[in-house]
This record gives sequence, C-alpha cells and structure tokens, in this order.
Amino acid sequence: MTQIQRLIDQVIDRVNVNLREPPFDAGPYVRNLIPLNQFSRFYAFYGLTSYHPIRFKFHKSSLAGSYFLGKCSVDHSILYKSDIRGDELKVQGQTFKCCNLQIPIHEDEEIRIKDSFLIKSLVHSNSHDLENPEEFMIRNTIAMHYANIHGAPTRGCFIGPFGTIDLTTFHNCLVGTYSYVQTGELNHHRIPDGQIWIRSTDAFNFLYRFPPEVLKRYIHVEPGSMPTGLFMEFMENRERDFEAAFYTLHTIPPIPVPLGATLNRYAVVRGKTVLSENVLVAQRAYLEDAWLGKGSNVQENCYIIRSRLDGYNVTAHGGKVMDAHIHPNTFVGFNAFLHGTPEFPLTVGSDCIVMPHTIVDLEEPVTVPPGHLVWGCIRNGKDLETHSIALDELSKRSGEVRVGDMVFQGSGAMFVSAFRHRVEHILESNGAMYDGENNRGHAQKGSRISFNIIQPYPEGDLLGLYPSMEIRP
Amino acid sequence: MTQIQRLIDQVIDRVNVNLREPPFDAGPYVRNLIPLNQFSRFYAFYGLTSYHPIRFKFHKSSLAGSYFLGKCSVDHSILYKSDIRGDELKVQGQTFKCCNLQIPIHEDEEIRIKDSFLIKSLVHSNSHDLENPEEFMIRNTIAMHYANIHGAPTRGCFIGPFGTIDLTTFHNCLVGTYSYVQTGELNHHRIPDGQIWIRSTDAFNFLYRFPPEVLKRYIHVEPGSMPTGLFMEFMENRERDFEAAFYTLHTIPPIPVPLGATLNRYAVVRGKTVLSENVLVAQRAYLEDAWLGKGSNVQENCYIIRSRLDGYNVTAHGGKVMDAHIHPNTFVGFNAFLHGTPEFPLTVGSDCIVMPHTIVDLEEPVTVPPGHLVWGCIRNGKDLETHSIALDELSKRSGEVRVGDMVFQGSGAMFVSAFRHRVEHILESNGAMYDGENNRGHAQKGSRISFNIIQPYPEGDLLGLYPSMEIRP
Repeated sequence: MTQIQRLIDQVIDRVNVNLREPPFDAGPYVRNLIPLNQFSRFYAFYGLTSYHPIRFKFHKSSLAGSYFLGKCSVDHSILYKSDIRGDELKVQGQTFKCCNLQIPIHEDEEIRIKDSFLIKSLVHSNSHDLENPEEFMIRNTIAMHYANIHGAPTRGCFIGPFGTIDLTTFHNCLVGTYSYVQTGELNHHRIPDGQIWIRSTDAFNFLYRFPPEVLKRYIHVEPGSMPTGLFMEFMENRERDFEAAFYTLHTIPPIPVPLGATLNRYAVVRGKTVLSENVLVAQRAYLEDAWLGKGSNVQENCYIIRSRLDGYNVTAHGGKVMDAHIHPNTFVGFNAFLHGTPEFPLTVGSDCIVMPHTIVDLEEPVTVPPGHLVWGCIRNGKDLETHSIALDELSKRSGEVRVGDMVFQGSGAMFVSAFRHRVEHILESNGAMYDGENNRGHAQKGSRISFNIIQPYPEGDLLGLYPSMEIRP
Repeated sequence: MTQIQRLIDQVIDRVNVNLREPPFDAGPYVRNLIPLNQFSRFYAFYGLTSYHPIRFKFHKSSLAGSYFLGKCSVDHSILYKSDIRGDELKVQGQTFKCCNLQIPIHEDEEIRIKDSFLIKSLVHSNSHDLENPEEFMIRNTIAMHYANIHGAPTRGCFIGPFGTIDLTTFHNCLVGTYSYVQTGELNHHRIPDGQIWIRSTDAFNFLYRFPPEVLKRYIHVEPGSMPTGLFMEFMENRERDFEAAFYTLHTIPPIPVPLGATLNRYAVVRGKTVLSENVLVAQRAYLEDAWLGKGSNVQENCYIIRSRLDGYNVTAHGGKVMDAHIHPNTFVGFNAFLHGTPEFPLTVGSDCIVMPHTIVDLEEPVTVPPGHLVWGCIRNGKDLETHSIALDELSKRSGEVRVGDMVFQGSGAMFVSAFRHRVEHILESNGAMYDGENNRGHAQKGSRISFNIIQPYPEGDLLGLYPSMEIRP
C-alpha cells in the first residue's frame, strides 16, 4: 500500500466519523473509482499575479489538477482535478459586511484544506463565515464529480455528483446527487437527491425536488460504481478537448481578447467564438461558436456552445448552454443544463433568473419571457408553465406560493431582491462594469497571471504525492 | 528601475570587485544585451525523482530557463536560460575520493548560487572541491552565452562566450572567449581568448591557442555587443526548434526509447533518429537523423545531425556533430564543433579523444585514425597532421612534445591515462554499462522524472522575479 492509498483511507475514515448519525460509509464512493495512476499524470498549478497576496504551503499533499491563487495552506490533502480559486480572499484591513454586521479583517484570509477529496470539483473563495472570516476552511470533505463548494468553510460533508453547497458554513452533512443547498449551517442533516433548497431564516424558503425518474436520466450514482447519466456523458465527451489546453504552455490567445476581458489560458475555444469587452472566461470553461456580449461571465466548468449571450450575463460554475440565445442581464445558475438544439432552440428573455440546477432539455423550441424565475426540468412550453413564475409577481407575494411541485414560503420580495443583489455583486466583482479605470474585477486582475506547474513524485512509495512546498511573496 | 534591473547592477558590481586587478567592467557585456522582458516569458523548472534527495530554496531569484535537480539554494540570483543539474551531488555517508585522499561526506551536498548571471549556460554538478565537498558554490559569477561551468565552486569569474572551466575550484578569474581551462585554482589570472589549457601540477601541461583570425570566424565578442560568429548563428538558427519542446507538457516520446535509455523531454528529436539501449539524451540536446549506439551519451546543448555514434561515445556538453561517423569509445569534448557536410563527411576512428573546444570544419572528407588525440581547427587532411597525435605515441613521451602550435610538457602516459579514466567515469555514471540490474546511472535514474515549472511575476515592480520558495521532500 503506497502513501497515497493510506491517505485516501484516512480521508474516508474521517468523513465517516463526521457522517456517523446515522452510519454512512463513503468508502464505496471513493475506493477504486479514482485511478491512482492519474495522480502522477496530472499536474497541479497555482497562479501568481501582482494583485493577489500569495503564500502557499503544501505538505505531502496530493493536488492533481488543483488551481490556487492567493494564500493557501494544504496538508496531506487529496484534491483530484479540483479548481480552487483565491481571488476573493479578504485582505487585512478590509471590513467584511454581512447580516448587518461590520466585521474588521485582522489578517489576510487564507485557504486551509486538510484531507478533503474533491474530484473534478470547484471551490470558490468568497467565504461567508462570520465567525472565522480570515479562515477559508475545508476539512475532511469528500465531494463527488463536478460538485461545487461555493464560498465557505465546510467540514466532513460528502457531496454527491453535480451537487452544490452555496454561500454557507456547512458542517457534517450529506448532500445528495445534483442537490443544491443554500441554507446556512446544517448539522447531521441529510439532503435527498435532486433537492433544490434555498432558505433564509425568517425571510423565505424555496423548495423543489426533481422526480427520481427524471434525475436518473441525467445523473445517478450507486455505491461502488462511477456516476452515470447524460451529465457524465456530456462532460466525458469533451474531456479530451481540454488536453491541448493543459498540455501546452504559453499559448497565444486563439481569438482576439478585447480591452478589460480575460480569456483564461486553461479554457477551450473552438469554432467562431467572439469575446466582447469585460468578458471573463475562467479556467476549464468551454466555448464553441459562442458569442459573448459585454460583461458576460463564463465561469469554471461552463460550456457555451452555438449560443449567444447578449451581455451582462452570468453563467455560474458548471452551467451549460447549448443552442440558446440569452438576453441581457440574465443569470444562469450553478450546474444548470440548458440544452437547446439547432432544431429546437432556446431563448431566454432579459433579466431572468435560471435557478441553479435547472434542466432545460428541449423537444420543441421554447422561449422564456423576460423577467422570469425558472427551475426544475423543462422539455417543452407546457413544462415551462409549471416551472416558472414572473419575478414581478413573486415580488408581490408573501406566505406560500405553489407552482407545480415548487413550494415557496415567506417574502417573495426579499427572495427576488436577494437574488438581484447577488447577480449585481457577481457582475461587479468579475469586472463587468470596468470602464477602463474604475470597477476593476477578476476579468481585469486575472488577465496577467503566471501559472506555476507542480508535479508529484513519478514513482516509488511517494508516487502521486508532492514534496513539501512553501512559497512566499 | 525595477527590482530585476537593480539585481543585475548588483551582480555587475560584485563581479567587477572580484576582477579588480587590473580593473575590469563586466557591465558592457551584460547591460542591454539581455532582453528583460524575456525573463517574464520563460519559465524555470526543477526535477523530482525518487533517486535524488531534494531541497530547493529560491528567494527573489530570477531563474528564467534554469533546471535544478537535487538540493539547491539560490538567493537573488539571475540565471537566464541556464541548465544546472544536481544528479551528481554527493550524499551524506559517501566517501569522496580525490588526489589519493578519502574524504567522508558529512551532509548532503547542496548547490548554492548567489548573484550569478549565467546566460544560456550549463553548470554541472560533479564538484571536485576538496575543502568544501558538501557545498557546490557559484557566487557573483557572470558567464556568457553557452559557457560551461563543470563541477566546481566558482567565484566572480567572468567567463566568455562558449568558454569552459572544468573540474576545478575557480576564483576571481577572467576566462576568454572559447577558452577551455582545467587548471585547478586560479586567482587574478586572465586567460586569453581561445586558449585550451589543461594542467595537472607536477604531472603535465597541455597548451594550445587558436589563432585570432580563426577564432573570429567562429565566435567573437565586443563589449556592448552581442557575440557574433558561426557558433552563434548555428545556435540561433535552431533555437525555435526548442520552443515546441518547452511549450508542450507531458509529451509521449516521439521515438521508441529502449530499455535503460533516457530521452529527456526537453530534447528536440527530428528526422529518422534511433536510440539504442542505455543511451542518455539530456535536456536541450538536439537530434536530427541521429543514430545513437548502445551506451552513447548526448549531453546538454549537444547537436547530433545526420550522424552515427557507434556506441559508448561521450558527446560532452555543447558538443556538435554533423555529417559524421564516430566509431566506438570515442570522446568528443565540451563545445567541440565537428562540422562535416554531406559532401565532405567526417569519420572519427574508435578510442579517439577529440579535445574540448576542437573545431573540425571540413572542406574535404577527413578520417581521424583510431586512437588519436585531436585539437585546434582542422579543415582538411593536412591540418589533421599538425593537430593530432596517436595516443599510444603520446603515452610513451615525457618532457616536451610540440605538434604544430600545441605544446605538451610532462608525462604523456599520465595525461592519456587521466583522460581515459575520465571517459570511463562519464560512461559509468551516465549509465552506459547498465545490465538491467547493476551499474545504474543517469540514463536509468533520470528516466522517471517529474518536471515542475515555475514562473515569475508577470508585471509590476517584481516583473521577472520569482516569489520565495522552499521545497522539501
């Protein structure tokens, strides 16, 4: 047994302890599913800019495809093909505003990861932990294929494939396949598969659950087997396209990159693709015949194929858009799967919110009217009626609103306002509003970046592990 | 003025102090000759294997294209496109045998570099410093294009283009263009351009100097200008071929690599090239229509073009071989330039020693008979007569031997024996004698290696400099 195998067992043990009520064994979801020889084939990398204070400490960590920016301490961790960003870490002297509190930041925030096992996952760095604003912590967390951990300390959570935990301090939780949870703290609480749950204490509660037969078509996992379904096929079919991006250094951008825009060199660009000003295309984004209007964001693991984003559009981590025309100011949430076809195209009007984890998989052309909230699984115009609501209407409602299987409770106005505010924040922090001087965001700060590539031991007992590294400014 | 410019000035100042008797200014050889923007374009790298104990410490160093293996501490140094190896560093517990002494090694030997300025140079790690066997030191050394520093502590030496200092502890010396010096310690001593000098105190002295008009054709440098001549043209014409090797990661070997052989992934391979068992092809080697027999070595910055090496051949750092057939057990020394043509090919018999810094640039076919020592500049058969001697004959001679402009003094037998012994050692340590189990050398130990790529700050005051790094096993 090599050291990396021992390390994997250690992660499984720790996670099982965290998930002990009722008993759960993460082992079958992990053991034998990750080809250990891949660990020595991949490289990890970290970024260096003049904007982000750095300090990296890696100790015997297995980092596979990870990506770090900013301050980061990783210890014995396994991070297979993970993307971890650090471009929103708080810095000393800043004031962190949250829940009507003003919290001074005493030292530069640092990403700390311990034994986490994040497979092809994404961890984003805008943390919202009030108690520990300087510590971006993830501990004995397992996260399955294409899961998102968005901005938060996390602990011992097993997160299912294409699952997302968002905005929040999570603890020892189990989150189901393709479930999306934005609920604050959860202890010893299990989220069923396909549950979309947004809760703001005393303000609102949004709940929808995918029917199991629908979910199974797109993503499904059995202990001891690899996840299956259309989502996995979609990702795997395009995996090879990333090889050229990852195995070539110093590429000249394949298409013109206008002022204020960033095209990350680990993105794939194919066909006739056009970028406008202030566009942010993150690493592991995939563009094919994509037209991206001013200030559009295409985040990590997003795919934009034969589609047009008019401008000021956010496509959040893992969002996929095919044969679609998205009008301005529309938000497409995490791991949304908007699958038009050349025959049955999708149109989404302006100022819409496509909820995280929404599936639109068309068997006829569909147009979402402007200013609508959309969720669930939509295959035709009839489905749209039971899986959408005008935002203006929702804003006027309080108490319980039921549309199809969706149940909303609380203040519609606060829900809509919170979402609108968040989209604005994302556009701002990504640099969509940059005017050549002010409102600089990720699209501008990330345009000049050095990528440092580190590889593990190529053989022996340490195969797949890295030497200890400490990197300071 | 950015920090890297300040650092360059600092190196110049220190070297000038070292070379103060009589006064010398290294500035014009350095300032404005190195495009600083290149420093942010290139990457440095270090290797990771299960054979070489590692520890890297880089502190604000500008490392451009450097290559490190083994233990290494670098401080504020500028190392532009340099190759530094660490695969012959002594390890704790070993006994270092030299000059009939047995010196126990108390701790792992470490490469220490300070403000050195090594432009496209090579530093090799088999050090011969008796007083400090654990410290592989290079300090405020400038070395010009394609200079070699072979196995030694060095200090404040300005070393001219294509110059070599070999096997020795150098101090504050100035070594001329294309000069080769293997003389032990030298203090405040200037070596003229094109001088080939091998001295073993009380044993022998070999001295040859290229006529200035010959040297000028091949390599020449004026203060304030880039070096010129056929050598520079030769290197520059092939520089682009290395780009693909450097800007692509994880390449599958382009040709079969047999058992016990290593083809470094930073080598260029073109045309019909064949490797035999136990062949070592180092980084920045260039092979084009090359046939390499069993146990042949092609070291850093070597070019083998339309040529055949029969087997157990050493081509030392910077050696170039074109349109030649080299018979077994023949040694081609540092920066030798063996330029046959398809019309006027070169044949070198078995067991020959082609001295370091030998130019063979043919205007008719030439055959060097077996067992000969060759030096100087040879363009035809007539030149060969005045620039070679049979090794058997030299072995029988003592006192003074003059052939053409070459003057030899001392024991021929000891000179020949020292050379033979060295060639044997190189073959052994490079793994030419590996039998599948025993006599493992660089060709075997370097076959599984992870390359870690580090890049400097991409902009700002720190442009071209690296963050501080410490890497431990």
